[in-house]
Amino acid sequence: MSGTEARVEPAAACPVPARGYDRIVLGHGAGGGLSADLLRDVFLPAFGNPTLRALEDQASLAIDGARIAVTTDAFVVKPLFFPGGDIGRLAVNGTVNDLAVGGAEPLVITAAFVLEEGLPVADLVRIAGSMGAACAEAGVDLVAGDTKVVDRGRGDGVYVTTTGVGRVPVGRRLSIAGACPGDRVLVSGTLGDHGIAILSVREGIDFETPLRSDTAPLHRLTAAVLAAGGDAVHAMRDPTRGGAASTLHELAEASGVGVVVDETAVPLRSEVRGACELLGLDPLHVANEGKVIAVVDRAATDAVLAAMRADPLGRDAAVIGEVVADHPAVVTVRSALGGERLLPTIPGEQLPRIC
Amino acid sequence: MSGTEARVEPAAACPVPARGYDRIVLGHGAGGGLSADLLRDVFLPAFGNPTLRALEDQASLAIDGARIAVTTDAFVVKPLFFPGGDIGRLAVNGTVNDLAVGGAEPLVITAAFVLEEGLPVADLVRIAGSMGAACAEAGVDLVAGDTKVVDRGRGDGVYVTTTGVGRVPVGRRLSIAGACPGDRVLVSGTLGDHGIAILSVREGIDFETPLRSDTAPLHRLTAAVLAAGGDAVHAMRDPTRGGAASTLHELAEASGVGVVVDETAVPLRSEVRGACELLGLDPLHVANEGKVIAVVDRAATDAVLAAMRADPLGRDAAVIGEVVADHPAVVTVRSALGGERLLPTIPGEQLPRIC
Repeated sequence: MSGTEARVEPAAACPVPARGYDRIVLGHGAGGGLSADLLRDVFLPAFGNPTLRALEDQASLAIDGARIAVTTDAFVVKPLFFPGGDIGRLAVNGTVNDLAVGGAEPLVITAAFVLEEGLPVADLVRIAGSMGAACAEAGVDLVAGDTKVVDRGRGDGVYVTTTGVGRVPVGRRLSIAGACPGDRVLVSGTLGDHGIAILSVREGIDFETPLRSDTAPLHRLTAAVLAAGGDAVHAMRDPTRGGAASTLHELAEASGVGVVVDETAVPLRSEVRGACELLGLDPLHVANEGKVIAVVDRAATDAVLAAMRADPLGRDAAVIGEVVADHPAVVTVRSALGGERLLPTIPGEQLPRIC
Repeated sequence: MSGTEARVEPAAACPVPARGYDRIVLGHGAGGGLSADLLRDVFLPAFGNPTLRALEDQASLAIDGARIAVTTDAFVVKPLFFPGGDIGRLAVNGTVNDLAVGGAEPLVITAAFVLEEGLPVADLVRIAGSMGAACAEAGVDLVAGDTKVVDRGRGDGVYVTTTGVGRVPVGRRLSIAGACPGDRVLVSGTLGDHGIAILSVREGIDFETPLRSDTAPLHRLTAAVLAAGGDAVHAMRDPTRGGAASTLHELAEASGVGVVVDETAVPLRSEVRGACELLGLDPLHVANEGKVIAVVDRAATDAVLAAMRADPLGRDAAVIGEVVADHPAVVTVRSALGGERLLPTIPGEQLPRIC
C-alpha cells in the first residue's frame, strides 16, 4: 500500500439528489432558484460548515486576533467586452463589492484565468490592463494568479475567477439575516443597467445613447453608508445575477421577514425601462454590477440616503421599499395604482452568462 | 456624465507584446517557458507589485498584526476522474500544498466552478463529495464558493478554481530565492506519478498495477520538515506542472545559483520509468501533485530526510542534488556514467491539461 493509498479516498458513489434534475442546465448558473437548488442539493451536503451555511457574499474568519473576509466569484460573461467595461473590470469590481457589502475593507485580490487556445493575445493584454486599472481604482493589489489553457472549443476566450481578501473592522456585523420589520430598503441608483447593456449588445438593440454597464467598485460608497448609519445599517448586498429580486428574496428568507417594494420608487433609466418592456423582462430581475441595496433602521433612513447621494456612484439613490412582519419570506411589489403583487423568483435561465 | 463614466476607464488599447506570439496556445498554460513568457509580457506589466513580482507559490500579507498567505489555482485536468483522484481532490490538495510550501498553515479554501451545460449532476456530486473529503483530510473548511454555467461546447464538464488562505507563523521565511551554494536538494518521494497516471488514461497505456496519481495534502509533511530543519530549510516547492525541472529552474534563477541533479538518486516507480521511455519524456519534466522539493543547509540534510521518511507521504524521500555557485541559473544532471548534461526547460506544450 502506497502512502497515497493510506489516505482517505473520496466517496466512490454519492447518491444523486432526487430533485428531478440529472443534467446541469444554464439556469443552474444564473443566480435564481436553480442555483439555490444546486447549493442546497450538492454543495452544502458536501462542504457544509457554519460559515458556508450562513450564505453571505463573503466568509469571515479570525486569524491571530485579526478578522478577515474572503469571497470568490467566477466570471463567464459574454461578450468579453461590452459598453462600460469588460470581463476583467467586472471581475475585480465584483470581488471588491462582495467584500464591501459585508463591511470589509478590500485589501488584495487573486485571479485565475482559463484561456481558450487561439485567444488573441491582444485581448488578454486588454483584459489584464483593465483589471490592473480596476485594482488601482479600488486601491487593491492583485497578489497571486494562475493561468490554464484549454483546447479550442472547450472555452470561450477567457474565463476568470477572482478571490478577494479584506479586513473586517472590530465590531462590524452585517448580515443578510439582519433585516427587521420597520427597516427601510434603499438602493444606491438605477437598476438593471448591467444586464440590459449586455443584452443590448447580444441582441443588437440600439439606444440613442449607448447604455453602459454600471460596473464600479462600491467600497467607498458602502464605507460612507456605514459611517452615516453605523449599527442602524442592518444588511447590505450588491444585487448582481438575478437582480434586486434575488437579493430581496434571500434577505426575506434569511431574516424571516417580508419585503414590500414600491414600484414607482425604483430608479430606472428610460432605456432600461424601454428595453425591459421590449424583451418582457422585469427590471427587478436584471443584473447590476455597481449598485448596493441597504436595509437600514427607519430612523437612519435620511442620513444613509444622504450619504449615498453624496457619492458619485450613489447620486440616484432612493428608498424603494420596507421590511414588514407580515408574509415572512415573501416579497411583494406595490404598483402605481396601489395594487400589491407577488414578486416571483425566476428559476434562472432567463439571462445566462450575464457576469 | 454618469457616476460610472466619471471613474477611471481601462486603457483602451494596450500594445501587444512584441515577442513573436499573437495567439494563445496550449503551452501557455503548461507551466514551462511559454507560461513564463505570458507572466512576464502580459501579467506583470498589468499587475506589477512587489508581492506578485516575488513569484512565490503564495502571497503573504500582514493584517492587524496577523500574517496570512493567499494562493489561487485553476484546474482544467482531463479526464475529470483518474486513478488516485479527480479534479476536486486535485484542486483542494494543490491549494493546500501551495500554502504548505510557503510554511503557512492552511485554514480555509474557496471554490469557484465553471460547469458545462449538460454535465451529469452525478459527476458534480461526486466531485463535490471528493472535495469535501479532501478538505476534511487536510483539516480546512471550504467557506465560500460560486458556480457559473457555460453553453454546451464552451467548457469541458467542470473547471474549478480554488483559493486558499493560511496563517504564516511569526518569523517564518521561506523563499524560492533562498537557496545557497552547498545546500542539498531533497525530494519527498517518487517523481512523475501524477503526470504518467493522467497520460496513461489518455493514451490507453496498461500497467500491471494501475499507476495512481500522487495527489495528497503535504502540509503535515512540510510541518515536519520545518520542525526538523528550522531555519536550515531555505526553500520548498511542490513540483507540479513542468515537473521538478521547472521548479529547479525557477529556484536557480530566483536564487542566482546553479543546481546539479544526481540522476541515479531520483526516486522513480518502475512504471513511470517505463512509460517515460515509451513516450520519450524525461521524468523530471512530468507533473507531481503530492511531492515537495526542499532545499536545506547541508548540515541539516540527515535530520530533514529522516523527518520526510517518517511521514507516510515521504517514505521514498531522497537527496537528489546540490546547489552550486558555478553556472548560476543553470540546472545540470549528472548521469550514472558521470557525465553532466544541461537539464533543458521545455516550452510547455508537452503535457497540456495535466492539472
